[in-house]
Amino acid sequence: PPCTEFDAAYFNSYAHVGIHEEMIKDRARTESYRNAIFQHQNYIAGKVVVDVGCGTGILSIFCAQAGARRVYAVDASDIAVQANEIVKTNNLSDKVIVLHGRVEDVEIDEEVDVIVSEWMGYMLLYESMLGSVITARDRWLKPGGLILPSVATLYMAPVTHPDRYGESVDFWRNVYGIDMSAIMPLAKQCAFEEPSVETITVENVLTWPQVAKHVDCYTVTIQELESITTRFKFESMMRAPFHGFAFWFDVEFTGPAVLPLNNGVPPSFVESSNSYISEGNHRKKRPNPSEALVLSTAPEDPPTHWQQTLVYFYEPLDVEQDQVIEGSLTLSQSKENARFMNIHLEYSSGGRSFVKESVMR
Amino acid sequence: PPCTEFDAAYFNSYAHVGIHEEMIKDRARTESYRNAIFQHQNYIAGKVVVDVGCGTGILSIFCAQAGARRVYAVDASDIAVQANEIVKTNNLSDKVIVLHGRVEDVEIDEEVDVIVSEWMGYMLLYESMLGSVITARDRWLKPGGLILPSVATLYMAPVTHPDRYGESVDFWRNVYGIDMSAIMPLAKQCAFEEPSVETITVENVLTWPQVAKHVDCYTVTIQELESITTRFKFESMMRAPFHGFAFWFDVEFTGPAVLPLNNGVPPSFVESSNSYISEGNHRKKRPNPSEALVLSTAPEDPPTHWQQTLVYFYEPLDVEQDQVIEGSLTLSQSKENARFMNIHLEYSSGGRSFVKESVMR
Repeated sequence: PPCTEFDAAYFNSYAHVGIHEEMIKDRARTESYRNAIFQHQNYIAGKVVVDVGCGTGILSIFCAQAGARRVYAVDASDIAVQANEIVKTNNLSDKVIVLHGRVEDVEIDEEVDVIVSEWMGYMLLYESMLGSVITARDRWLKPGGLILPSVATLYMAPVTHPDRYGESVDFWRNVYGIDMSAIMPLAKQCAFEEPSVETITVENVLTWPQVAKHVDCYTVTIQELESITTRFKFESMMRAPFHGFAFWFDVEFTGPAVLPLNNGVPPSFVESSNSYISEGNHRKKRPNPSEALVLSTAPEDPPTHWQQTLVYFYEPLDVEQDQVIEGSLTLSQSKENARFMNIHLEYSSGGRSFVKESVMR
Repeated sequence: PPCTEFDAAYFNSYAHVGIHEEMIKDRARTESYRNAIFQHQNYIAGKVVVDVGCGTGILSIFCAQAGARRVYAVDASDIAVQANEIVKTNNLSDKVIVLHGRVEDVEIDEEVDVIVSEWMGYMLLYESMLGSVITARDRWLKPGGLILPSVATLYMAPVTHPDRYGESVDFWRNVYGIDMSAIMPLAKQCAFEEPSVETITVENVLTWPQVAKHVDCYTVTIQELESITTRFKFESMMRAPFHGFAFWFDVEFTGPAVLPLNNGVPPSFVESSNSYISEGNHRKKRPNPSEALVLSTAPEDPPTHWQQTLVYFYEPLDVEQDQVIEGSLTLSQSKENARFMNIHLEYSSGGRSFVKESVMR
């Protein structure tokens, strides 16, 4: 695909050092990747790796430290220039080859054994960088090769957040004794039109989450990501004002080194990837018997720079304990800019139906 | 002056409710204004007021509560529509007249006794909104009228901030054992090219501040604000790495009600407005014998949404105790966009001279 002006702006945003500082300092993120790479050291040693969107090159260097024979570190952003300098400083120029360009455009004249990439955006799919991983996989990955992470799961759950609603909306009812409630319709629009990246706690979650999208990195296609629709059905575990939906994700670092592939046919991760299990109408965290390494951005886990993504309604809906909340979610790439994400929510509860549209820009 | 596309973008930024929520929730700000208005209640009662950049109209309503006969609440941003609704809800439509437009463009067919305005931007002068107060004063204020605030003072001081420098620059020396110092030149540029709005403490300040600009709202002219140059001379009170300069301001709510004007000739506030007094080579906080109400954004005072503004150098300069730091500061409106501010710093210390240019966008 051609490189649009939106892509150029996107790559340019990664030329700023601060974004890399923030990502590297997210220890849950960086240590999960480092641990995953070293956990697969037996597989990686002596092999060829491509790092999709290498940024400063940190994951490429971890792979080199884990014994990779050669690492192609690809990034379309100008940060690739810095990555190349860092590789030189660390005397890894014979192993790590920095390619400054898009995975769609650069040339690698051999097949690769491993793809490593930290491609996840807010709400997992924002930024649409997974498409570049798919492109790299389809261009270069050997049958039976390893993709880190191998599986990603987007979760959603209904939430209550009276404090947040109160500080942005109810606040206007009495401002130093003045009734400013006339501003509330605009306040709701300003505060809740767009998805909000913020940290919530398990106390905000009305019931166990459901899977909104499961991604098997070995088989997912670009077409499949253009528009994703899923139905949901929750039963609130408490009586509370229902303010919106929260989204978070986890990724799992499994693959051929743990579960050998047979003839290039990837194993099904659908069962193993969902961190929550059903029990009657509820779900709970499942045990992790495979000891697969998981990087989670859930509200019950240590915070990451991804936090959680919230889509608030303009009006809360009071729900009773056990009240059913059901509907559908559609995530689609914006026609305006494929890196933007349209979020279309239809939801019903207590006999009333609603629609919420939101764009993550 | 014509309304440029930059002005339109500037006004548009104030149409978002969040910015008003943040300002109103800054209690130091809002309570200072409320206290100042009620402290001048005897002067305001029965009089005509203009509120320059009224936002939600909160200061206009305070003035109405203080007995103003009529308040013209002027704002070019669409928030004026909300202000008008709020005025109606509070049954103040007979007293508060919302004018949706620039002070340069709207018509008020009478002289006014009082101008109230919360016009201060980061580093006092960012946003160049003071020009609108001057325009309102020159168009409508009666001789001997009151301006709240009446006086504003911008301070500067040399600072040390090893933590901040460390986390953005030194951090790259050892990233999970990898030498990423190659990125440091770019990291310095990304972190320190532009002024940074952040909160420092008195521990960061190397010595007492000096006045960078004193503004008497009764006499200041628009021309005088186009370019401001001041010389400075500090003696560091400690041995430390000198990382840059911090700027903050205070405003004082004095005026005819406290110090009666004689024949429209404003009193000199130069002495009284500086919150610090010289004592030998050092300055310290002066007592406030006039009990004039002061809204301060200094690091030693409770935090406000203005925080402090820092201009960091790319390289720290080690200074000894009593080492002299001297030079000049020029603040000027950007030719690119008059609401941007160019900061030109020339400074010398220990026999070395430097220049730092920065633009606040």
